[in-house]
Amino acid sequence: MYSKSAKSIDHVAIAVHSIEDSASEFEKLSGHTCSSVETVESQGVRVAFLGSIELIEPLSPDSAVGRFLERKGQSLHHIAYRTDDICFELSKLASEGIELIDHEPRTGANGHLVAFIHPRSTGGILTELVQHSE
Amino acid sequence: MYSKSAKSIDHVAIAVHSIEDSASEFEKLSGHTCSSVETVESQGVRVAFLGSIELIEPLSPDSAVGRFLERKGQSLHHIAYRTDDICFELSKLASEGIELIDHEPRTGANGHLVAFIHPRSTGGILTELVQHSE
Repeated sequence: MYSKSAKSIDHVAIAVHSIEDSASEFEKLSGHTCSSVETVESQGVRVAFLGSIELIEPLSPDSAVGRFLERKGQSLHHIAYRTDDICFELSKLASEGIELIDHEPRTGANGHLVAFIHPRSTGGILTELVQHSE
Repeated sequence: MYSKSAKSIDHVAIAVHSIEDSASEFEKLSGHTCSSVETVESQGVRVAFLGSIELIEPLSPDSAVGRFLERKGQSLHHIAYRTDDICFELSKLASEGIELIDHEPRTGANGHLVAFIHPRSTGGILTELVQHSE
């Protein structure tokens, strides 16, 4: 059923106006306790995790996530797949004609290597690859 | 870190215009082979799975998912959490003031018991609970 490179979902990111205001609802739903909040300056966001749910809050209204929130309201923002070899995956996807946002991985939340794939190549869904640092 | 009732993500559902047109992109991304397509008349959709990704296609433009697609385009539609006791979870969430769409579980894709929770109580995110039938 699964190909050799079948990937699991690392997390699903939800854009919210305020992590602090949203955390308790997501704690009730998921049964997970909200992690501490990390600021990822390079992406203009504050983030926190509840299990496989990532809450992302823009640092300013004119950031990418700030504009997303203004346009769509609180909603699902991206899906992240976990991979053990992000560089291999990026070059494989590029060779298959998938349009990448990040051709090289960069450091994201929790110090993991991350790379984004353009929604034009993913049925309109912003998609991230994550390789855990540990 | 996790409370006793911490739930994992069962699947993430993406509304698409056509499962057949979208499947190959999601196969490349996820590494999973698309399952056979199942029609869920009660929800007005055709569905197929690639690992933890569910593609949902409306049976008609005036169904709930059809209207969602017209309003938002292809996008993330809902998050489903897996639970071993959906009736217990529903009554627990209701007692915590969470607004339910389904007060009793019904049969969804793959014969599983499912229930939806109103986005008003979930930070704007349509949320499903799933109890596997096997």
